[in-house]
Amino acid sequence: MLVICDGMGDRVEREFGNETPLGFAKTPTFDRLASAGSVGLMDPISPGVRPGSDYATTALLGYDPRVCYMGRGGLEAAGAGIDLSPGDVAFRCNFSTVDDDLTVIDRRAGRIERGTIEIAETIRKIQPKGIKGLKIDFRATVAHRGVLIFRGRGFSRMVSDVDPHVTGVKILKCEPLDDSTAAKRTAAAVNDFVTQSFNVLKNHRVNVERIGERKRPANIVLTRGAGTLPPFKPLLELYGMSVACVAAVALVKGVCRIAGAELIAAEGATGGLDTNYEGKARAALKALENHDLVILHVKAPDVASHDGDFKKKASVIERIDEAVGKILPSLDASSTYVLVTADHATPVSVRDHAGNPVPLLINGPGVPSSKVSKFSENAASRGNLGRLHGLDLMPVISDYLGKAKKLGF
Amino acid sequence: MLVICDGMGDRVEREFGNETPLGFAKTPTFDRLASAGSVGLMDPISPGVRPGSDYATTALLGYDPRVCYMGRGGLEAAGAGIDLSPGDVAFRCNFSTVDDDLTVIDRRAGRIERGTIEIAETIRKIQPKGIKGLKIDFRATVAHRGVLIFRGRGFSRMVSDVDPHVTGVKILKCEPLDDSTAAKRTAAAVNDFVTQSFNVLKNHRVNVERIGERKRPANIVLTRGAGTLPPFKPLLELYGMSVACVAAVALVKGVCRIAGAELIAAEGATGGLDTNYEGKARAALKALENHDLVILHVKAPDVASHDGDFKKKASVIERIDEAVGKILPSLDASSTYVLVTADHATPVSVRDHAGNPVPLLINGPGVPSSKVSKFSENAASRGNLGRLHGLDLMPVISDYLGKAKKLGF
Repeated sequence: MLVICDGMGDRVEREFGNETPLGFAKTPTFDRLASAGSVGLMDPISPGVRPGSDYATTALLGYDPRVCYMGRGGLEAAGAGIDLSPGDVAFRCNFSTVDDDLTVIDRRAGRIERGTIEIAETIRKIQPKGIKGLKIDFRATVAHRGVLIFRGRGFSRMVSDVDPHVTGVKILKCEPLDDSTAAKRTAAAVNDFVTQSFNVLKNHRVNVERIGERKRPANIVLTRGAGTLPPFKPLLELYGMSVACVAAVALVKGVCRIAGAELIAAEGATGGLDTNYEGKARAALKALENHDLVILHVKAPDVASHDGDFKKKASVIERIDEAVGKILPSLDASSTYVLVTADHATPVSVRDHAGNPVPLLINGPGVPSSKVSKFSENAASRGNLGRLHGLDLMPVISDYLGKAKKLGF
Repeated sequence: MLVICDGMGDRVEREFGNETPLGFAKTPTFDRLASAGSVGLMDPISPGVRPGSDYATTALLGYDPRVCYMGRGGLEAAGAGIDLSPGDVAFRCNFSTVDDDLTVIDRRAGRIERGTIEIAETIRKIQPKGIKGLKIDFRATVAHRGVLIFRGRGFSRMVSDVDPHVTGVKILKCEPLDDSTAAKRTAAAVNDFVTQSFNVLKNHRVNVERIGERKRPANIVLTRGAGTLPPFKPLLELYGMSVACVAAVALVKGVCRIAGAELIAAEGATGGLDTNYEGKARAALKALENHDLVILHVKAPDVASHDGDFKKKASVIERIDEAVGKILPSLDASSTYVLVTADHATPVSVRDHAGNPVPLLINGPGVPSSKVSKFSENAASRGNLGRLHGLDLMPVISDYLGKAKKLGF
């Protein structure tokens, strides 16, 4: 079982005794696993490199993102259960609120919850003008979020975002990011699509109703993160492991799904601070019955990190520790390996991802004891694993599980 | 002097006090060298990656096997003293015993010892039908082992094994492993060669005699591990070091020979548990008189590992320690560096190569003291060298010897 605590890695804070949130948190389960097992540091990419969640998750699953990163859109689409074909370009989208000048008033359209399925049906009928062989697909996912897919040949992910990422400014024009005909054609199609989305949504039934309720209308679709299907060979083929993933975040689910992992739903998993920690751990426990590797991903530490809340972050780490502690007695210690790590550091002092290494613990048969008293970045930096790269994680797990192929004779 | 204890790396075993065979063994010489010198972990390739002996030895000599690995055959041929030209394809072969249906009865033909030179003369005359420009070469090496070489142009190492690696099944058909004409042509030639080997050997004089003595006949040649000459630049050119190698295993001798090392014979060196440990160490000592680097390779720990025998493995490590201890007083400590490591881990619990890192010690002038009390994987994991890669070894040695080229100004 690989427990990925999203954004758990942090920097030491003087006012908390030169400890990180993990070092400050009471984590008796992690500490026990760390002491009997090995601990060390892991650079998701390489020292000092700041990875986004897509980049980091790609690396931790053993795919070098410097080679095979294809943008966020394809990962999000896969996480929403949409199958992409090679050549399709997918975009993350927000339903947003703009005024008549196309100035952004609310990037999340009042965090719209209902009516998005109906809006998506309207959107799906848009046909950008003068672009031959383009088939539009569109899905509403969670709340204000959606995925736009350009199906067909001759489109490119090398185009810029329409979403300006801030309010009070005009929407951006989608621009080609290289000189290819495909990028120019894709940018033209995106711009026409966005304009048409405003035309068909401004007086849409759902929005008329929202305005009547003094809610912000979802009167435009703003695109960003264009991406294609990354060329991942299945984890089973690469590392001999059948893999399951318990995660709430679409992006993580997407990376896992493209890697051939089975996505396991857990009741009450939200991707937020209020997630059902124990429910997710129990779902992972059950998935271990018929998978070689189960990835348990918890988003909450990253959420607390982006809020810059040290104590909140420590407390959600404690909740993950507690949840893992609940299922630990049900695992066969003679044959089960438990790993705890983070996909990247999100220091509360930075409120964003940083390039620091993350702590890693590996517990299981034949793994040397670190004898550390606490699982923390401080202890891991003096640990008995040394310093690994994110790309090392799958080979190390596959080797301990006896699934790794021998290279040569 | 670089002492490579084949397969010495291991995992901790609970019943031996959470120690590995090296940690459990009494190794006063290694311990003294480790305490006064530096210790750390080394991943032969990278963490978790399981290397074969060919792959690992290639890496330790400073050649990236992910780039320049060309199969086992070329290395074995070189180890048997055969010169290959670029384009030649070499195969490891066994003299085996099959029945009339070509079902394998004994892959080693009753471990045949005598008569193989005579058999090889017959084999060398085989000319596969319909294959133009192919010159067959064949050498009997040790016991049931031989090397087949296809000399000429337009042949490929990308073909499968005829040897099924188990008994009781039919021999395999050699298949091309890619779409090239060369691979198809090579596979056809191999299949015809193997069939002809059965035809000329079944009633061969040596076999008629063996059958009379109720021994299994060497009535077929089974091929495997097709390979070509790897593109190694000489170690002298790359690292400025003249190198000698004391080894019994053909594969290790082959890698060293292609790298430009002088092969030094040691009396009683067998590649087995019964090897002449002290004789090999004394041969290494002598070779140090006129070489910058001497590699002393001992196969025995790997043999004990494949047998799954923890105590046997510990005891052969003790014998290597003792042999090194015998020659140590004859080395000039003010100018000599002694390194002890393994080419890969072969945990006794796995009985095969694994992806764990191996311990490494470096002792010599200017090397910082680790002050560890015991040379072991546990001590090395907390050592003062950190965690290196196999490819780092030659540059580190070359640098301490003052032979490394400066890159840039």
